[in-house]
Amino acid sequence: MKLHGYFRSSASYRVRIALNLKGLTAQHLPHHLRKGEQSTPAYLAINPQGLVPALESDAGEVLIQSLAIIEWLDETHPEPPLLPRDPLQRAKVRAFAQVLACDTHPVQNLKVLSRLRELGLGDEKVTAWAGWANREGLSACEKLIAAEPGRFCFGDKPSLADLCLIPQLGNARRFGVDVSAFPRLLKAEAAAMALKAFADAAPDKQPDAE
Amino acid sequence: MKLHGYFRSSASYRVRIALNLKGLTAQHLPHHLRKGEQSTPAYLAINPQGLVPALESDAGEVLIQSLAIIEWLDETHPEPPLLPRDPLQRAKVRAFAQVLACDTHPVQNLKVLSRLRELGLGDEKVTAWAGWANREGLSACEKLIAAEPGRFCFGDKPSLADLCLIPQLGNARRFGVDVSAFPRLLKAEAAAMALKAFADAAPDKQPDAE
Repeated sequence: MKLHGYFRSSASYRVRIALNLKGLTAQHLPHHLRKGEQSTPAYLAINPQGLVPALESDAGEVLIQSLAIIEWLDETHPEPPLLPRDPLQRAKVRAFAQVLACDTHPVQNLKVLSRLRELGLGDEKVTAWAGWANREGLSACEKLIAAEPGRFCFGDKPSLADLCLIPQLGNARRFGVDVSAFPRLLKAEAAAMALKAFADAAPDKQPDAE
Repeated sequence: MKLHGYFRSSASYRVRIALNLKGLTAQHLPHHLRKGEQSTPAYLAINPQGLVPALESDAGEVLIQSLAIIEWLDETHPEPPLLPRDPLQRAKVRAFAQVLACDTHPVQNLKVLSRLRELGLGDEKVTAWAGWANREGLSACEKLIAAEPGRFCFGDKPSLADLCLIPQLGNARRFGVDVSAFPRLLKAEAAAMALKAFADAAPDKQPDAE
């Protein structure tokens, strides 16, 4: 498999963790987002949305959108599972993941922040915007799992929720958010980062890290 | 079941279509987003994220996030299926849905547009922002299914992709986007709107429509 990504992309980071947890290897093909390499004709032919990640399967099929890629990995390589078996529990894990993957990350990604700059907002306001989006999402997530027992977001094994949480906490810190307001999330993060699958997927461990 | 929603909310609209396709009825509990009714303590106790929709099951469990709700409905009420059975095809349908539900709708929802106004942007720039987000997402979707045969987004039956597309096209028009640039999407829309399940879920058919 080939993973088109970028070291600092949260969505790529989620997929890297999933691959590691599943024991799968992929050739990493970095695209430098700040240099616009995701918008070249060659990459748009792979992913017309012009975003990373995109995963090329061994059969040459291209998959896009990190959550769809991760669910595909989970369906085609079921062990260890990234979603619980019970439908209600699956819905809770997916909802947590979507609070971050739908309502948080896309509101503070490079594309949106660049657009804000084009509209004349200065660095301070742009960073404040990103901090706001992160606080809103993480605050909701903290409440969603406040009463969840276990070391990870849901239970004692990592799930799709943790795959989304860990990269988002990294973003939050980068934008100056005080994450100590989210003790339950930090507990899950500590459990996750003790696993090699998470640690190896971190942005600063990637070959294209700057 | 009880569906907490708002007539104009795209995410609520997706769930309304899913319920109709499954032949399920839910009591509709509207929360007027422009009046801030999603931020009352009573509603935040139901959904700490303060967004609609939220679905309360007959057992009293609360589910949030439209895609998670729809996958739960699909897993607990499998007929008619909203996702293909083949993993690769499921990934394609989910990816299309996520282009809209992750990268498009949250970038132009009421919460984000209100924030832009707070930052001093006038109506014209705010509407242009929403139009941009819609064009970006719909352009990608048009390319994703350009070569897909069938009347709907994927094949000859509605899927999660159509559930996300129809509400988004409504938003795009509301923000002045020229949707004639997306003929394949309009073909899918025509097929969908010929179905009572889609037509009955439209914003202007809801009891709280203004």
